[in-house]
Amino acid sequence: MDLFDKLENRPSPLGPFTSEGYGYYTFPRLEGPLGPEMKFNGKDMVVWSINDYLGIGSNPDIKKVDVEATEKYSLSAPMGARLMTGNSTEHEKLEEELAAFVHKEKAQLLNYGYQGIMSTIHALVDRNDFLIYDELSHACIVDGKQLAMADKSVFKHNDIESFKKQLFRAADKMKDKENGSILVVTEGVFGMTGDLGILKEIIELKKEVPFRLLVDDAHGIGTMGEDGSGTGTHLGVQDGIDIYFGTFAKSFALIGAFIASEPRVIEFLKANSRSQVFAKSLPMPMAVTARERLKLIKQHPEWREQLWNNTLKLREGLREIGYTVLPSESPVTPVLTKGSTDLCQDIMRKLREEHGVFVSGVAYPVVPRGTVLIRLIPTAAHTDAHIEKTLKAFAAIQDFVAEAANKLSA
Amino acid sequence: MDLFDKLENRPSPLGPFTSEGYGYYTFPRLEGPLGPEMKFNGKDMVVWSINDYLGIGSNPDIKKVDVEATEKYSLSAPMGARLMTGNSTEHEKLEEELAAFVHKEKAQLLNYGYQGIMSTIHALVDRNDFLIYDELSHACIVDGKQLAMADKSVFKHNDIESFKKQLFRAADKMKDKENGSILVVTEGVFGMTGDLGILKEIIELKKEVPFRLLVDDAHGIGTMGEDGSGTGTHLGVQDGIDIYFGTFAKSFALIGAFIASEPRVIEFLKANSRSQVFAKSLPMPMAVTARERLKLIKQHPEWREQLWNNTLKLREGLREIGYTVLPSESPVTPVLTKGSTDLCQDIMRKLREEHGVFVSGVAYPVVPRGTVLIRLIPTAAHTDAHIEKTLKAFAAIQDFVAEAANKLSA
Repeated sequence: MDLFDKLENRPSPLGPFTSEGYGYYTFPRLEGPLGPEMKFNGKDMVVWSINDYLGIGSNPDIKKVDVEATEKYSLSAPMGARLMTGNSTEHEKLEEELAAFVHKEKAQLLNYGYQGIMSTIHALVDRNDFLIYDELSHACIVDGKQLAMADKSVFKHNDIESFKKQLFRAADKMKDKENGSILVVTEGVFGMTGDLGILKEIIELKKEVPFRLLVDDAHGIGTMGEDGSGTGTHLGVQDGIDIYFGTFAKSFALIGAFIASEPRVIEFLKANSRSQVFAKSLPMPMAVTARERLKLIKQHPEWREQLWNNTLKLREGLREIGYTVLPSESPVTPVLTKGSTDLCQDIMRKLREEHGVFVSGVAYPVVPRGTVLIRLIPTAAHTDAHIEKTLKAFAAIQDFVAEAANKLSA
Repeated sequence: MDLFDKLENRPSPLGPFTSEGYGYYTFPRLEGPLGPEMKFNGKDMVVWSINDYLGIGSNPDIKKVDVEATEKYSLSAPMGARLMTGNSTEHEKLEEELAAFVHKEKAQLLNYGYQGIMSTIHALVDRNDFLIYDELSHACIVDGKQLAMADKSVFKHNDIESFKKQLFRAADKMKDKENGSILVVTEGVFGMTGDLGILKEIIELKKEVPFRLLVDDAHGIGTMGEDGSGTGTHLGVQDGIDIYFGTFAKSFALIGAFIASEPRVIEFLKANSRSQVFAKSLPMPMAVTARERLKLIKQHPEWREQLWNNTLKLREGLREIGYTVLPSESPVTPVLTKGSTDLCQDIMRKLREEHGVFVSGVAYPVVPRGTVLIRLIPTAAHTDAHIEKTLKAFAAIQDFVAEAANKLSA
């Protein structure tokens, strides 16, 4: 049949959010300077939907560096892939500084996080290998896994028994192979629920079965660990992470990402990571401002402190009112309630229209049928006033939410 | 065995280029303002290695827009995926303008070309479908194909008989399936050799077997067609291209890309293209400057004219001296000679060190063993003086090149 006719009839994973909700529930336009106060459909909002954890997106000193770097290099440079004509001392220095920051020997800068980690996983394993990953891994890991030639198995989210089972199964398969290795992939912070990967427990098992561990710490870098170097540091197991992936998309408020590991691994990846070898390098102003952002993140631990103060205040407040906040160990603050897709939309609309509070929610199929998850992302740029206004709004819609949940239970 | 030990011993596709050649043959640092005159290792070079076809990378008016947009938005905005919090009227207007430019109804902006086309191919076909692609397709198409669940087959580069065979085979398979469709993927301009995809011949076959055609026109957009709208327009078959992919990485001298097609296809992709749904949107200043660049590309057909004048001058000059220039139909100018990897390195080094001419070359395994391909990319910013200097340089090394080729033949 005709491919386009078929696409037209394929159900969308977004369901009713797509057609009716465009510009509102999906593809909303947040306007004005980036930060906790933005405009939506002409109205002032307190925004809890952007991962600018450290408030860097609204920092005037950083904007100044952005402008200067663009003035110096334009947004065009460099042209070409890193390997061909896209290299510079700025890119190289940034790699050195990133490696040092996450306590690894060497780093590879990636032009974009999504394709970067995909190609990393793709390059690392071959058909003799075994790849084991957490079932709640981000889409980019799932796609990278899909590209990889290795045998694959998935373990139940953060379930050490399930992981063990897959690990021993893999070890058993490796016995027959001369040339087989095991790669385990999980996350530092799971972005939807905010819980941490069970890195310590996983690493402990290296004593029984040798494997290498890749950790996607997109939400952990900058927010976790005493020095902001991520979830491995926070849990005291950074050395046990063999390949560390950090992105600029959250705490750095930028695009681009990096991989940090042993020199031999980074050298291998620089020559073999397809999306890096065959696609354009990270633009020059991005490399310059990434260095500046990293410098300021190191110089301002109080930003992280403020982030955590805001996180705890918001979370306690929501719990006091009576909401169920999932036991997140990161700043990600997920509020769970019983309800349908309709309720999810109602909550978002009521908070926006009646209270000037902008949140994002997800319903089935992202979360189990009959549940609604409202995810709040506190940042260092939020103030007490923002938090109080938001708690008032959540209190005001509470009866409505409870009623909808009861209706569903009945 | 240990994964890292294994990686260390895996042969690199770059061979001797990696370890010894770092910073010279691979990962060179071109410094100073982007354009045909840059510095390499402190020396002045005439550069023929960057795909800034229209000379946009060194245009002061465009840099001004880059700076103003960065001043207005910073490099941080927007945060989040397009679907969540990464949308803006700038992104939407750019999509409208791109669709109109390439004579399609609707467009989807992509945060990066490589992952964008990967996810597009991934999303378009399911396990009932059949995907047929040209064997010389770019790495991003090959990776997208790898992700796709469909049956796959490859046809010999630009070989219509080979394509026909695969098409009829696919049609035969589709007979048994209620729900099967065929997607064909090829390129407008093949970036390494500069020849055009046989779009007309492929499209002609739709009369015999219905299928949809996706064309990657990364090198064609801006350079081909009377109005710069690409290879489909140049060949008079733009309507036969069902899904048009253009990137900003070449003629636009930027990052980002887009897909243009029917509204129902674009709506489907906006909800299903994983790297777009689950990764950050194109930064605001990039969207703004992409609009400006498109506007100027439309206003300045003389840039394209200059590009073609330079291309023909360079190409005729090289042929007059006695070099073999492959029959490219695009500005890509590939010089082929017999020789080893050593010769490839020698040519690059001699041109750089003795003549101040910077070119990139590839040897086996990118091209067949015993051949060396030197690829020159003329741009509108090159002058007659640049061309003359380069032709003199090629003339000066000609005996050396011929001798090395003869040695290999002996």
